[in-house]
Amino acid sequence: MGKIAVVALGGNALLRGDQAGTIEEQEQNTTNTLENLISLIKQGYSLILSHGNGPQVGNILMRNDAGEEIYNIPQMPLDICVADSQGGIGYMIERMLKNVLNKHNIDKEVITLVSQVVVDINDPAFKNPTKRVGKIYSKEQANKLSEEKGWIFKEEIKETVSGWRRVVPSPKPIQIMNAKVIETLAKQGTIVIAAGGGGVPVYVDENDNIRPAEAVIDKDLASALMGASVGADEFYILTDVPYVYINYKKEDEKAIEFLDYADTLKYLENGMFGEGNMAPKIRACLQFIEQGGKKSVITEAFKLDNKKYGTKITMKYED
Amino acid sequence: MGKIAVVALGGNALLRGDQAGTIEEQEQNTTNTLENLISLIKQGYSLILSHGNGPQVGNILMRNDAGEEIYNIPQMPLDICVADSQGGIGYMIERMLKNVLNKHNIDKEVITLVSQVVVDINDPAFKNPTKRVGKIYSKEQANKLSEEKGWIFKEEIKETVSGWRRVVPSPKPIQIMNAKVIETLAKQGTIVIAAGGGGVPVYVDENDNIRPAEAVIDKDLASALMGASVGADEFYILTDVPYVYINYKKEDEKAIEFLDYADTLKYLENGMFGEGNMAPKIRACLQFIEQGGKKSVITEAFKLDNKKYGTKITMKYED
Repeated sequence: MGKIAVVALGGNALLRGDQAGTIEEQEQNTTNTLENLISLIKQGYSLILSHGNGPQVGNILMRNDAGEEIYNIPQMPLDICVADSQGGIGYMIERMLKNVLNKHNIDKEVITLVSQVVVDINDPAFKNPTKRVGKIYSKEQANKLSEEKGWIFKEEIKETVSGWRRVVPSPKPIQIMNAKVIETLAKQGTIVIAAGGGGVPVYVDENDNIRPAEAVIDKDLASALMGASVGADEFYILTDVPYVYINYKKEDEKAIEFLDYADTLKYLENGMFGEGNMAPKIRACLQFIEQGGKKSVITEAFKLDNKKYGTKITMKYED
Repeated sequence: MGKIAVVALGGNALLRGDQAGTIEEQEQNTTNTLENLISLIKQGYSLILSHGNGPQVGNILMRNDAGEEIYNIPQMPLDICVADSQGGIGYMIERMLKNVLNKHNIDKEVITLVSQVVVDINDPAFKNPTKRVGKIYSKEQANKLSEEKGWIFKEEIKETVSGWRRVVPSPKPIQIMNAKVIETLAKQGTIVIAAGGGGVPVYVDENDNIRPAEAVIDKDLASALMGASVGADEFYILTDVPYVYINYKKEDEKAIEFLDYADTLKYLENGMFGEGNMAPKIRACLQFIEQGGKKSVITEAFKLDNKKYGTKITMKYED
């Protein structure tokens, strides 16, 4: 049996920030990205795919707002919006992937699961919501929503428009629901799409009931946990750079091809990866290794078929 | 190994026409409906669930329209909207079902698949679109959309508002994608939620590529086909009456408990079930029997634990 790889498709893999978000754009980007998975499949990997949902769930939230305003249609809570986005994006990836496989004469089943991911309702993140979601409101609107729904807002200042934006917690994922099913399917050679958008965040209450958490889970952390839970060998985060850099965009910037656990942790603690975009990905990679994964890789989708590219993180350099 | 039953949850099972459509209403209705499945599970059935999506996808389409109007967010095509609704509704059913199972101390996995269902692009339904979807437009708006997007409209006259509504084809389902995976999971005892809203309609083009069909598939027909495809023994359509009636709401109305294939077909051809609501359900039941299913049942969810209720259709009366 081949190795299992979990591949997390970044936001840009499906929809770039400079695009309007039409379905044609999303389908073309997705097809281009998925083409690069063929090399992994030909090497015998069983694949489990996850994906971001930032622009899509952002649009779904805005549409909920607009639908209430114009047609008085009740808004759905965040958990339903995330689940909606898993349906739409997962279907799109599944269909495009079947067509890419067909082009390469590869006969494989592809299935898409709607995924819940369990978080701890006592996670400190619930006391400090940081993740911005949905539209930008005026001060008055924000105050009203805060009273009506208990939403928390932070000021947002952008070039084009400023105002107040809802923030929600980003708690740590602690359990991927249906991981056993995902593992079994992957081992049978089925390509599984799961944990989209980091999964729908839920928590288990004192009566063992599953309840929605109004939160979003980092998709790379959820993907890393899914990888560890199903006993995956390798974990790929596909992003918009071919390597991780130390001192990115500074004079002494340096691409790194190999990293061991200890060095990665040291560089991370010294802030050498930059806190904005790369550090959370590095943390997800480390988590995968800590929980038994053999190798985490960060690279561009378009570099996947050339093993020279990509930053490979392993427990020890000799691995 | 127990029998496999496919259970199709009707629109009312999740959201009634007289309700606003809040998430609280949907969750409560869903829980009430799912409680009734416990008797089937205790009898040893492996369950595959499907569901309608009428009110939900209607709302998603309206929100798409509103989102474009207020925020200029590109509208998603119908296939993505159906897939979105599968994600949101499937997640809700899965979570509520886990909680109902927990209440009854039953430990079972529940998974939700995003489902594509293949139709024939040469199906005559594509020449005669009949299924009304989305909002009611003015004559001018309808003309504009017809020119811009090729949409077809029919006049709609209602008590509260009149105008023009988009109609899409309702082709016959010919293949449930990933039926083998659904069968395997069900046989392992996992409860599978699939083919929601009749599935996302797709067709296979001359290059064997899978393309979206701007259509909707009858959810009972898709569910019946799913049942036959996975070798299910029984097929349940849960609706808002305890029995099928001959000459429904007429003076000689008569509830029927047992029907064989030949009598059902004869009554159907004589229009004795009424063409509006029940006849399509009857056709789905017959299709299931034709394709090898043993028994189709139409009843209310709340009557499921009492075998006295429900109209049972079998190939022969003695079955």
